[in-house]
Amino acid sequence: MFREEIKVLDCTIRDGGLINNHYFTDEFVRAAYKAISEAGIDYMEMGYRSCRTFAPESDYGPWKYCDDDKILEITDGIESNTKISIMVDAHRVAEQEFKPVDQSPVDMIRIATYVKDIDKAIAMYNIAHDLGYEITMNIMAISAEIEKDLVEALKQVADTKVLAVYVVDSYGYFYCEQIEHIVKLYQKYVPGKEIGIHCHNNQQLAFANTIEGIIHNANYVDGSLFGIGRGAGNCPLELIMGFLKNPKFQLAPILKVIQDYMIPMQQEIEWGYMIPYMVTGILNEHPRSAIAMRKTKDKDKYAEFYEQILDMM
Amino acid sequence: MFREEIKVLDCTIRDGGLINNHYFTDEFVRAAYKAISEAGIDYMEMGYRSCRTFAPESDYGPWKYCDDDKILEITDGIESNTKISIMVDAHRVAEQEFKPVDQSPVDMIRIATYVKDIDKAIAMYNIAHDLGYEITMNIMAISAEIEKDLVEALKQVADTKVLAVYVVDSYGYFYCEQIEHIVKLYQKYVPGKEIGIHCHNNQQLAFANTIEGIIHNANYVDGSLFGIGRGAGNCPLELIMGFLKNPKFQLAPILKVIQDYMIPMQQEIEWGYMIPYMVTGILNEHPRSAIAMRKTKDKDKYAEFYEQILDMM
Repeated sequence: MFREEIKVLDCTIRDGGLINNHYFTDEFVRAAYKAISEAGIDYMEMGYRSCRTFAPESDYGPWKYCDDDKILEITDGIESNTKISIMVDAHRVAEQEFKPVDQSPVDMIRIATYVKDIDKAIAMYNIAHDLGYEITMNIMAISAEIEKDLVEALKQVADTKVLAVYVVDSYGYFYCEQIEHIVKLYQKYVPGKEIGIHCHNNQQLAFANTIEGIIHNANYVDGSLFGIGRGAGNCPLELIMGFLKNPKFQLAPILKVIQDYMIPMQQEIEWGYMIPYMVTGILNEHPRSAIAMRKTKDKDKYAEFYEQILDMM
Repeated sequence: MFREEIKVLDCTIRDGGLINNHYFTDEFVRAAYKAISEAGIDYMEMGYRSCRTFAPESDYGPWKYCDDDKILEITDGIESNTKISIMVDAHRVAEQEFKPVDQSPVDMIRIATYVKDIDKAIAMYNIAHDLGYEITMNIMAISAEIEKDLVEALKQVADTKVLAVYVVDSYGYFYCEQIEHIVKLYQKYVPGKEIGIHCHNNQQLAFANTIEGIIHNANYVDGSLFGIGRGAGNCPLELIMGFLKNPKFQLAPILKVIQDYMIPMQQEIEWGYMIPYMVTGILNEHPRSAIAMRKTKDKDKYAEFYEQILDMM
């Protein structure tokens, strides 16, 4: 599948940061940036731009804030055509600082929002747009939304000049036929804008659903190194590259950074397909209960966990 | 997706046996049989019926032979509606013993064959058919076959009375659009017979491709406990059950046997998504080179492995 319009975004540091409170070392972030640049990936998301009022510095590492100066420490001296993205939570915005785009290493701001916070997201969009950034709108947890509400939100997004609006399967619930339906819904209600897709791997469907999105003309696709991300993780970047067959991509640097950093990292923090995440996925639930049980001594008592979740429904 | 005609087959012991030379303990095989029976799975494949001339007993455990008496030791005293299947390699048949079906615990014989061995497979079919068994034809490694040769083999199968003919993605190479094409090809050339699907997980697509087969009316689907199987493994049985939503299935016994046996087993033998299997998958190669490198001290040198494989092509 070669389509020049397709843009690949690596969300390793941003979504992976949800596992370790955004405490990745500078060494690793630089190695990832270098590999992603050499591989020809279009965007790398460095983390969140959160405000320190809501997210005190005592609790989080640097990739929770993604200060411009911090990003410049990482990118300094590395040759790259990869654009830099950061994510902002629309419902947690306060005093964040944004410089005009030409004074910042950041190229793109992705606004993460729930349907109910779409007005906050659009207020955030107005700030970022006036400063000259590329902007996407990433509507989270849509598998738990009433379609009529989602459509209303999409109509509001249609009136903006965002570059892309993302299908985000936060719970890892969707099967391919549902992805097709949702992507077509987006195309109907946000005409003329790019569609993005961000999938979770609760049912080992993150890559397959990303392909399904691409087949139906989603052009902005998210992946992460070895699928790192909260809970079951994301679509593995290396698999997207194998599928796209765009001659601009180089797989070898990605495999190298996986062997050097991601495999050792799995000894420290966990992500990927596990039964508790499968259970929350098939039941269309937020993974928080599964994340919590994986931190207890009963982390492998799957049958009991399944019964507990069913009892709570 | 609820379709009464769909039959689910668990291939845990058979495909998993390729990792450990078929040395599963009786305790585990009984636990698996009990769980699979309680879960309402249609078939359980106990292993291969191999001949001891080609496969000497000094090299293999009991599930390489699946003697009727051995199977009866496992099933004894366990209430079950699950039928028993065994697999036979068409190209390695010699003096195997088969009793008439009414004197055997085996209900179904699945004949694994390459396209080039289809005549041997049909000879095997004739033996098994005369003895009264249900029979399927499982054509392996079809992603590496010339389509014209595959079609010729399918035409020969069309003249038999096999219950089903399987799409087998041995190398884990296929994407969903290729699965659709192949399933439709089977339907065209083997009209009136059931289509089966058996996928490998090199690209994390085993479950997605199984769904794709089901959508296009494949009714015989293979899965295994926690995806166990050679190399990257198979489609996880637990995910198929979540998708099918057939009220006859019970998920809890499957989750219990996974927690009790499969998780500890991963400390002894390995399977599942790993970069070397991804590499052979995207390059449409047999996984043997990846299996071999995973047994060396360089098992995580992915970039070097990738370069080596490319150099050999």
